[in-house]
Formats: sequence, structure tokens, C-alpha cells
Amino acid sequence: MNKIAVLLSGSGVFDGSEIHESVLAMLALSKLGVDYQCFAPNILQMHVVNHFSGEVESNQIRNVLVESARIARGEIKVTEELELNEFDALIIPGGFGAAKNLCNFATNGSDCVIAPEIISFIGQFATSNKPVGFICIAPIMIPLLYGEGAIGTIGYDSETAQAFNLMGGQHQEAAVQDIIVDEINKVVSTPAYMLAGNIAEASLGIEKLVKKVVEMV
Amino acid sequence: MNKIAVLLSGSGVFDGSEIHESVLAMLALSKLGVDYQCFAPNILQMHVVNHFSGEVESNQIRNVLVESARIARGEIKVTEELELNEFDALIIPGGFGAAKNLCNFATNGSDCVIAPEIISFIGQFATSNKPVGFICIAPIMIPLLYGEGAIGTIGYDSETAQAFNLMGGQHQEAAVQDIIVDEINKVVSTPAYMLAGNIAEASLGIEKLVKKVVEMV
Repeated sequence: MNKIAVLLSGSGVFDGSEIHESVLAMLALSKLGVDYQCFAPNILQMHVVNHFSGEVESNQIRNVLVESARIARGEIKVTEELELNEFDALIIPGGFGAAKNLCNFATNGSDCVIAPEIISFIGQFATSNKPVGFICIAPIMIPLLYGEGAIGTIGYDSETAQAFNLMGGQHQEAAVQDIIVDEINKVVSTPAYMLAGNIAEASLGIEKLVKKVVEMV
Repeated sequence: MNKIAVLLSGSGVFDGSEIHESVLAMLALSKLGVDYQCFAPNILQMHVVNHFSGEVESNQIRNVLVESARIARGEIKVTEELELNEFDALIIPGGFGAAKNLCNFATNGSDCVIAPEIISFIGQFATSNKPVGFICIAPIMIPLLYGEGAIGTIGYDSETAQAFNLMGGQHQEAAVQDIIVDEINKVVSTPAYMLAGNIAEASLGIEKLVKKVVEMV
């Protein structure tokens, strides 16, 4: 078994990777005895949100790679450094960073595009049919990455599900403890904090997703 | 059972709360069905460390409460807002934030002092004999808070252990999966990332610490 890559998008639910989801994914990998390596793009965040007040700090600029390094305890690589043959699979936690920094779904809805660094990074796993796990809002990128008919879930939110289908995907509803598997594309998704009322709930689906991704290797 | 308080010191191992330890503590509480409430002091961080380069960003200023809110998903209160009767116990994750923002052990060693907001906050739990769990480097505050003979661990690091004893504590060595219990003061400590080689290892001691703190209520 090679390593599994974890793609981060900042550090904090409102402008970066959801911290609990990221840590829960790493914990599930570590408990299975699987080594992981964190990656993030060396790009600026869309913006910085004060997580205490909820307001955008318009005078602040933060870098996705530098902030993601907080979750990774400094052990992180820039997405361009990926050596695909060293990795068997990829996990992508959610948080608004996935919809603001990795792609622009948060502002553009179903007209969204994925950042070039991220198309290239995830694309390498997709084209070599290596399994990829998408958590929370990250699955919104599935249709754009895998094309017509790709299957995924963001839980029950009908507006996001409609956007998923508009982009060419086939959305399937799922509860917080569930995973949805696209066997052809080797894509696994789970709603996590799209639905979770607490961290123990979020951990159920994430643990299941990580196990399934590892099984599919 | 009332809530349990979690005291944060920023967001990121090198200048704030260790993110994994904080999330693992919340996960352990949530799995036990215990509600928690995060708190942090409304003070400036000692400094900001770029977690990718490891260097201090001398032109940046960040607030401990605002950054801690990232780990708490926005659900956080300032330490002054504590209503002690609503809480049965307290958990304090580690990370350099505990030794740079909550107290100044990182710069002053055994001559360190604890920030006034933090003496008052933890002191309320200590004087009412409510259990407190200290993780990683956070136990370095035990002697100053509980006085002569208070028992705790920071793992095996002899220099830090000496400082602990110099300040009047009784240091006991512990492995990563161990907890040390001071039954008189109702203080529990565990080394976590003072020793852990990976997150699964860190989770062992933290889960044990949280269970013990909850039992002691």
C-alpha cells in the first residue's frame, strides 16, 4: 500500500477546509495504519472570514497552502509536487474552502469552474482510476471532474443537489452516516457537516468513506 | 451532567492550539454524549508562525479568540463569559499556544506566568474542585495553578519535567497512551503530541483523559 493524499483548501470551515472533517479523515487513515500526505494549492484564499464574528475581513489576505499547513502540522506539499505513483488514492475534506478556493461554486453555483491546479491534481487520480473520497461540499466538483452520469451526494440539500445534476452528475440523497459509491469512477462521497449535528455524527460517515476508499485501492 | 468547557489558545500547533488534539478531545466528548463549549481569551497571539515555512510572520497580528473560533466552527465564547455553574469540568488541549498565549513558558521557562484571563478561568474550576484535563504541553501550568506537590506529566522530556518540578509540581513520566491522575486536585494529564508519532497514537491518551475527566465529575 502506498500513501493516500489528502487535499486541503485552507483552515477553517467558513473560508478553508473544515477542520473537524480534515482531522477525522486523517484519524481514520492513521487508525487503519495508512500513511497520508497533505497537499494544498499555493494560491490565495478567496477571502478571510473572521470565524468569531462571521464577517469577511476585507483587509486580510491569506494563502491556502500556508493556512492548510496548520491542519497538517507543517507536513504539507504544494499540489504541483504530486508524484502520482507514490499515491494510491485521494481524500478531499469539505468546508467552504472546497467551494471558494478549490472551485468557485460558492459564488457561481452550477456555472462554477475548478482552479487549474486542482483540475490537474484531482484529474491525475481520476484518469488513472485511483479512488477519490469527497466529503461534505467537496462532492460538488464530481460532475465537472468525472463527466456525465458521475454519482455523488451532498446529503439532502435540494438546491445543491439540483446544481449537481445541472452540471451533469447524478445526485443521490444520503444520511450523515452514509456513503454513496460510484463504482465505475471509483468515487466515494459522504455528507458530513452538510448534515451532521455534532462531531461524533460527522465521524460516522467519514470513517466509512475512508474505509471504502482504502478497500477500493 | 452539565457541559464540559474546552479552552483553546489559537489554531495551529506552532502558535495556537494543536488542531488534532483539540478535535480529538471534542470527538471523545461527543462520542460519550457530553456537550462541550469552547472558550478562548480575547487577547493577541504572542506571534504568528507561517506553518508552511516554520518562520515567524513579524508583520502579522492575530487574535487568540478569533483564530480559536476556526476549530470551534464559530461556536466559542470569550473566557470572561464563563458561568461556572453550567460546567462540570474543563479540557485544555496543547500546542505552542498553551505555552505562548495562555502562559509564557515557551519564552520564560520555569519563570513563566499565566495570563490573568487564564488564571481566572482555570482558577474557577480549580478552586471549586471540578476536574481539569491538561493535554501535551498544557500541563506545564499545573504547578502554578494548583501549587506545591501537584502531579502531572508532559511525557519523557527531561528539561520540561525539570521545569515542572522547579515550579513546585511533581512530574511523573508517562507514555503516549497513558494518563497521569492527581486525585486530590482532580487533575488529569497526557503527553499526546509531546510524544505521539501519529494522530492515532495521540488519540489513545486523549480518549483516556476525556473518559477519566468525565468519570471524575
